Amino acid sequence: MALRLNASYAKGFISDDELKQLAPAVQQAHDALHNGTCAGNDFIGWLTLPTDYPAGNMSFEKGTANPEFNRIKAAAKKIQSDSDILIVIGIGGSYLGARAAIEYLTTPNYNLIKKDTPNIYYAGNSISGAALSELPELCEGKDVSLNMISKSGTTTEPAVAFRVLRKMLEDKYGKEEACKRIYCTTDANKGTLHDVAIKEGYETFVVPDDVGGRYSVLTAVGLLPIAVAGCDIDKLLEGAQAAQADFAKTADIEENVCYKYAAMRNVLYNKGYATEIMVSYEPAYQMMSEWWKQLYGESEGKDNKGLFPASVIFSTDLHSMGQYIQEGVRNLFETVCVFDKPKTDLEIGIDPENIDGLNFLAGENMDYVNKNAFGGTVLAHNDGGVPNIVLEIPDWSEYELGYLIYFFEKACAVSGIMLGVNPFNQPGVEAYKKNMFALLGKPGYEKEQAALAERLGDNFKKLINK
Amino acid sequence: MALRLNASYAKGFISDDELKQLAPAVQQAHDALHNGTCAGNDFIGWLTLPTDYPAGNMSFEKGTANPEFNRIKAAAKKIQSDSDILIVIGIGGSYLGARAAIEYLTTPNYNLIKKDTPNIYYAGNSISGAALSELPELCEGKDVSLNMISKSGTTTEPAVAFRVLRKMLEDKYGKEEACKRIYCTTDANKGTLHDVAIKEGYETFVVPDDVGGRYSVLTAVGLLPIAVAGCDIDKLLEGAQAAQADFAKTADIEENVCYKYAAMRNVLYNKGYATEIMVSYEPAYQMMSEWWKQLYGESEGKDNKGLFPASVIFSTDLHSMGQYIQEGVRNLFETVCVFDKPKTDLEIGIDPENIDGLNFLAGENMDYVNKNAFGGTVLAHNDGGVPNIVLEIPDWSEYELGYLIYFFEKACAVSGIMLGVNPFNQPGVEAYKKNMFALLGKPGYEKEQAALAERLGDNFKKLINK
Repeated sequence: MALRLNASYAKGFISDDELKQLAPAVQQAHDALHNGTCAGNDFIGWLTLPTDYPAGNMSFEKGTANPEFNRIKAAAKKIQSDSDILIVIGIGGSYLGARAAIEYLTTPNYNLIKKDTPNIYYAGNSISGAALSELPELCEGKDVSLNMISKSGTTTEPAVAFRVLRKMLEDKYGKEEACKRIYCTTDANKGTLHDVAIKEGYETFVVPDDVGGRYSVLTAVGLLPIAVAGCDIDKLLEGAQAAQADFAKTADIEENVCYKYAAMRNVLYNKGYATEIMVSYEPAYQMMSEWWKQLYGESEGKDNKGLFPASVIFSTDLHSMGQYIQEGVRNLFETVCVFDKPKTDLEIGIDPENIDGLNFLAGENMDYVNKNAFGGTVLAHNDGGVPNIVLEIPDWSEYELGYLIYFFEKACAVSGIMLGVNPFNQPGVEAYKKNMFALLGKPGYEKEQAALAERLGDNFKKLINK
Repeated sequence: MALRLNASYAKGFISDDELKQLAPAVQQAHDALHNGTCAGNDFIGWLTLPTDYPAGNMSFEKGTANPEFNRIKAAAKKIQSDSDILIVIGIGGSYLGARAAIEYLTTPNYNLIKKDTPNIYYAGNSISGAALSELPELCEGKDVSLNMISKSGTTTEPAVAFRVLRKMLEDKYGKEEACKRIYCTTDANKGTLHDVAIKEGYETFVVPDDVGGRYSVLTAVGLLPIAVAGCDIDKLLEGAQAAQADFAKTADIEENVCYKYAAMRNVLYNKGYATEIMVSYEPAYQMMSEWWKQLYGESEGKDNKGLFPASVIFSTDLHSMGQYIQEGVRNLFETVCVFDKPKTDLEIGIDPENIDGLNFLAGENMDYVNKNAFGGTVLAHNDGGVPNIVLEIPDWSEYELGYLIYFFEKACAVSGIMLGVNPFNQPGVEAYKKNMFALLGKPGYEKEQAALAERLGDNFKKLINK
């Protein structure tokens, strides 16, 4: 069983002809990707990563079996055995995939439930002193390991967190023992973090050169934290391998649901739909939507183009964004992930007095009610003028998650190519950094400082108290 | 000191004339609201709630001092003294405000940190069996109280959760002791939950008739959980009272920042901006943005109108949605909340070797870096064609939060009136419920069942296994 795409709730909004007309564009995107002729073709290592990675065929590691893959499992076992807490330091693609996968496979309350794997905290993904200063408190009396994830090691957010937390570990354990508790996921050969790790003797894992941050969840970037949480990374890659095979066979969208998703959202975009809302009916899916938002927003949002990615959890947000989706501006569509099998189910009991009037549900499982909420909503939103693309996913296993991750990755690449952008760069992310570095007087950026401060004006001077 | 609106980063996008032209519309909205002649005028109890509520001048409770306000404090003390966990059951406006306020005033990791107040879990805000079945596990060996929040008591999500969790409490403590641990916030005089509470002897608090769910955070709906978390609800109301006074003085937008915010977003909407993104630089603000999304989405998103509300936390999401905001479709603007004083600060230490190249920041506080990230970003986004409305908030206290809540509530009402919609209803929320009830065969809804099932088709039959 594999993920299915149910197009029936988009029927009134996308005609068969509109889809058929896209066939050449889909074929072209497929060819450009597989021939390596697309824009950004130095970042398509993810395309064959599911088979290459465990087999050791990556750009950085040729061989019959990837020793790094086994080292990840060994490191995860060690962390499980000697740590109550793993702190994952990273921003953007360096933490979103791991966090999404862990919450999907376990629960958003992973850190609250009883379990025999370490708590996992995420640091270095903001510049909040409040967030960072909380961590030493959370670590009091606990054994801790660190996984610092950064291609370069110079990204401000994770670098600041690493400076603070490395010191915490060294104060706690001494330099030698701390060294055995710090794991760096970084460039194979160069860069600040790579050099620090070599010098200090930290165990290192590789961020491949040809895999961008938002496509990196199936490398050590995601796999180490996911394995520490007790999830089966073999099965995760197995699912991704199946998807890799399934979505390489043909560019015919009637046979390739990955390309069909790309084509459908392309048709809708071209008809003026501006926003795509990712929907799930399980709170455990929320961080997957955040991962998806980065993947799609960063890949498509350029050259003044691209669908705006948003997300909701239903029925939660039917009591929040639901009103807008039902009756607001008619420029949005939904992509809904539903699961054949629930994560966990619960039967609704009977109340002899039926005071709450719920006895019509007595004996039913919550999943049955949840599915009918989905059914009722998809029709209501269709009636309100909102197309729905429905992804039917067999279950919440590692295998199906791996399949789903690859599905979204490849559909994103094909979508971006069809949109006429380079799906693998992110030139806009530099703009704020350049300004920030200049304002902070970072060596090499000082020139712009005065002009920027002048533009920000007196209010800003007061705000920063300088 | 009070919240300030810095309009300078919207200057290139909104002219003074455009704002001036709105003066009559703003005045009209102000009059309609304060004279009680606007659409939805049976739901404007929130307008004078900050002064009326503690004084006992609400529709349900006239007198010189509101005995309910004191009962909230007493109940909070009791829960703090006899419970390790408070479970808040509610959906939409029945939990978002409390959760937003608690995370804002404490931390998003409230349930993880050491403290002398109970953990607070939220239930009944989805139909996920996985989410609900986790709670008994989290409560094992702990003392628990319940706060069931529902105007009617028949909303499916909280009603199902209440049925399950009430049984859990009765099994744990016996009916008599459980009764002392269940608090119901509901209609003053009627409805299923009201009747159950009277029959069982649960302590009750009131959801006023003239205050809609999304405007209810400053009633018992929000105040009881907020007080249980150890926050000062007197100060919260004091801040809201100050805002109530400040924003009632004049409709002149140069004197009234609340109306200025409403007017600015109205100008942008009319110029074709489709999406408003709420921005903060502190993770603790995230649930406030969720509260804001419900408030604005549900108030404005109707009659095929309204700004689409979205939110991000920076710098976190500068590495996710940042690319889109910088260079995607140019139909969005940002509303940024910055704080004069940080929640908590942290000095960046010096590293004699400066391996990470961060020594240009050594000795600086993280808040200083975070503010410069804001400064750099606001200019970068301006340069990218994104107007920014900046709200400068003095600090993270209860007082300023109360002020901010009222600011957003009143600006939302004025915005909705200027948009020409009834800001206080939510007709679209019924559409999915009607379908869902019919599909589930709820008494009174059976008629539509067959037709809806037919429309959903065979896929759906397989999905629900029936």
